[in-house]
Amino acid sequence: MKFSKRILDMQFSPIRKLAPYAEIAKEKGVEVYHLNIGQPDIVTPDCFFNAVKEYEERVLKYSGSQGIDKLIESFIKYYKGWGIDFEKKEILITNGGSEAIMFTLMAICDAGDEVIIPEPFYTNYSGFSDVAGVKVVSFMTKAENGFHLPSKDEIVSKITNKTRGIIVSNPGNPTGVVYTYEEIRMLADIAKEYNIYIIADEVYREFVYDGLKYTSALTMTDVLDRVILIDSISKRYSACGARIGLVASKNKDLINQILKLCQSRLCVPTLEQIAAANLINTPESYFYGVKAEYENRRNILYNALYKIPGIICDKPTGAFYIVAKLPVKDAEDFAKWMLTDFSYNNKTVMFAPAEGFYATPGLGKDEVRFSYCINSDELEDAIDIFERGLIQYLNMQ
Amino acid sequence: MKFSKRILDMQFSPIRKLAPYAEIAKEKGVEVYHLNIGQPDIVTPDCFFNAVKEYEERVLKYSGSQGIDKLIESFIKYYKGWGIDFEKKEILITNGGSEAIMFTLMAICDAGDEVIIPEPFYTNYSGFSDVAGVKVVSFMTKAENGFHLPSKDEIVSKITNKTRGIIVSNPGNPTGVVYTYEEIRMLADIAKEYNIYIIADEVYREFVYDGLKYTSALTMTDVLDRVILIDSISKRYSACGARIGLVASKNKDLINQILKLCQSRLCVPTLEQIAAANLINTPESYFYGVKAEYENRRNILYNALYKIPGIICDKPTGAFYIVAKLPVKDAEDFAKWMLTDFSYNNKTVMFAPAEGFYATPGLGKDEVRFSYCINSDELEDAIDIFERGLIQYLNMQ
Repeated sequence: MKFSKRILDMQFSPIRKLAPYAEIAKEKGVEVYHLNIGQPDIVTPDCFFNAVKEYEERVLKYSGSQGIDKLIESFIKYYKGWGIDFEKKEILITNGGSEAIMFTLMAICDAGDEVIIPEPFYTNYSGFSDVAGVKVVSFMTKAENGFHLPSKDEIVSKITNKTRGIIVSNPGNPTGVVYTYEEIRMLADIAKEYNIYIIADEVYREFVYDGLKYTSALTMTDVLDRVILIDSISKRYSACGARIGLVASKNKDLINQILKLCQSRLCVPTLEQIAAANLINTPESYFYGVKAEYENRRNILYNALYKIPGIICDKPTGAFYIVAKLPVKDAEDFAKWMLTDFSYNNKTVMFAPAEGFYATPGLGKDEVRFSYCINSDELEDAIDIFERGLIQYLNMQ
Repeated sequence: MKFSKRILDMQFSPIRKLAPYAEIAKEKGVEVYHLNIGQPDIVTPDCFFNAVKEYEERVLKYSGSQGIDKLIESFIKYYKGWGIDFEKKEILITNGGSEAIMFTLMAICDAGDEVIIPEPFYTNYSGFSDVAGVKVVSFMTKAENGFHLPSKDEIVSKITNKTRGIIVSNPGNPTGVVYTYEEIRMLADIAKEYNIYIIADEVYREFVYDGLKYTSALTMTDVLDRVILIDSISKRYSACGARIGLVASKNKDLINQILKLCQSRLCVPTLEQIAAANLINTPESYFYGVKAEYENRRNILYNALYKIPGIICDKPTGAFYIVAKLPVKDAEDFAKWMLTDFSYNNKTVMFAPAEGFYATPGLGKDEVRFSYCINSDELEDAIDIFERGLIQYLNMQ
């Protein structure tokens, strides 16, 4: 039986595709430190679980396709805290940020249209684009430049009459970059001049370190009709398994079009929405604690990686990832070997080969992405084991 | 700002698009009987909520993209009860049956490919097809024939070299038809002869009345590599708001391809999966009770509708819908009017205009779909109010 070309062209998730090898390691009794996935170990706020436990309806019904009022209102209140005004008709609840991106691409692009994305980028952007028949056109950002944006000319050179938008993850996954005001302003100017959308993936908004100021694309008030916000509670509240995200825009007509897609999948889970609505009651102190914890981990991981001979990486200032260049030819082979052939004190480390974060063939083959979503002690142990593994692997070559 | 052609071509859900008018009615203090949507009033089994309340993890983590083991195993056990054998690698958990259909179309069709569907059909089939760039080619089934399939020749005449599959909802939404063994056998023969898939949407499997025997496409053992099962707990356990569905096939290569799509959206909500896994402990008596209740409602609704002058409908034998032809020119206008301009004893009735269930332009304009998901007393009251509304509407024309 035949499969579609689009599905055959899609790649397996570079973040998840090594999972079967991790299973094999675990079956052999080897403990695996997961630096491959952005799955925080931070406790989800109690108010989420309390709302779940207090649910008293006896019939678990569909909710409205746009999401439940209480949840939308809680997001409006949350954005107000960031100085951003949204109305009810400007927000649609989605199955995580994933569905928000997918629906956005569907609504603004036809098959054959293009989006431009700074490279390396969150691997699923290309997955969603494949599904939507959209061509990803990338432009390079570089470790030595802290993965900041290149010049306006360089970005603009990628725009064609098929370009419908630019996707930016800020803070960046996998790079950890936090764009400056000037960079976001430049994107706004480009969007205006070339009549394209800005798809602003801001799910890591809370995770900005070193006292840097965060600039949301939504503060560019002259281009709000072309800014599409992608957001999610997954990272902010360590609630990845809730799959609650949203797409929002001051462009109400666009949101109304996307509502058709929301209607086609009926609704987002009712119970999770009710629980997520309660997260607005999370005390401010939660965020300070979480941010300080991640900043500390970032320091531990970066300082350790930086010292390993042959590794090149820049200190990230946001999110919870580091992209590092390793002194290996094939980072995926090394990552696999770490799971199948290596352990130290009966432990090993899993990380994501970075090739899948690039659209340009050949790039990223010697790079990996680490997340720092395990606690400091484990993180220190994990890097020690990683270094031992790397040395042994290199000696075998 | 430009929108994509595909989103502009999509229709708003005919089941949900009148919702704003229902809101207006409710704001005026008018009670609305919802016969528009398949949202059962039946109580969700306690074991679902018990599992939710017993959840003790403090971090709500991602689950695996394929779904949690316990839930997949519970489905394997459930299908065994129907004489169908599945293995773990043959099932993927999805966000409701909706995502299962969407992913299936993506995996077997490229843009421009075709699927054939008996008409009238579940309206979201065409929504998903629009999104996937797939052309829906319909063939007629008729009320006077109980919406059973036409001859093999008639179906086969719709197949071209672009046809990738046939979608069948059995029992049928919106028609309530339950296909005979011979009909399913005929589809299997067609699938084999013309090398196409059968996408078998069997979410209403439990709802078969009048002692009829149910034939799953999965009992056609000679074509199992081309049968793709769409299923969901929404109707079976009255858990629509959980959004737990699945796609399953004995064709493991296909399931492995669809896994890429599952990975791109990371996972289905963890908590809902854990709760859904517990539904396997629902006592058998639950299903008997539910089925008897729906069969009784079907009788009440059909017997009342049948007697209203000018209404044409056939007695359905499955699911919980009836399609009826009304003595009006524009059923959507009538449906809207019932919400905005009519009430009796401060109550009115909402139902779904059937035009959106047809692909052929012009068909279904005078038809509506009723669901019978409210209790018998309310249902009797609702039909009485509907009849009064219809008479008043006709008098105004």
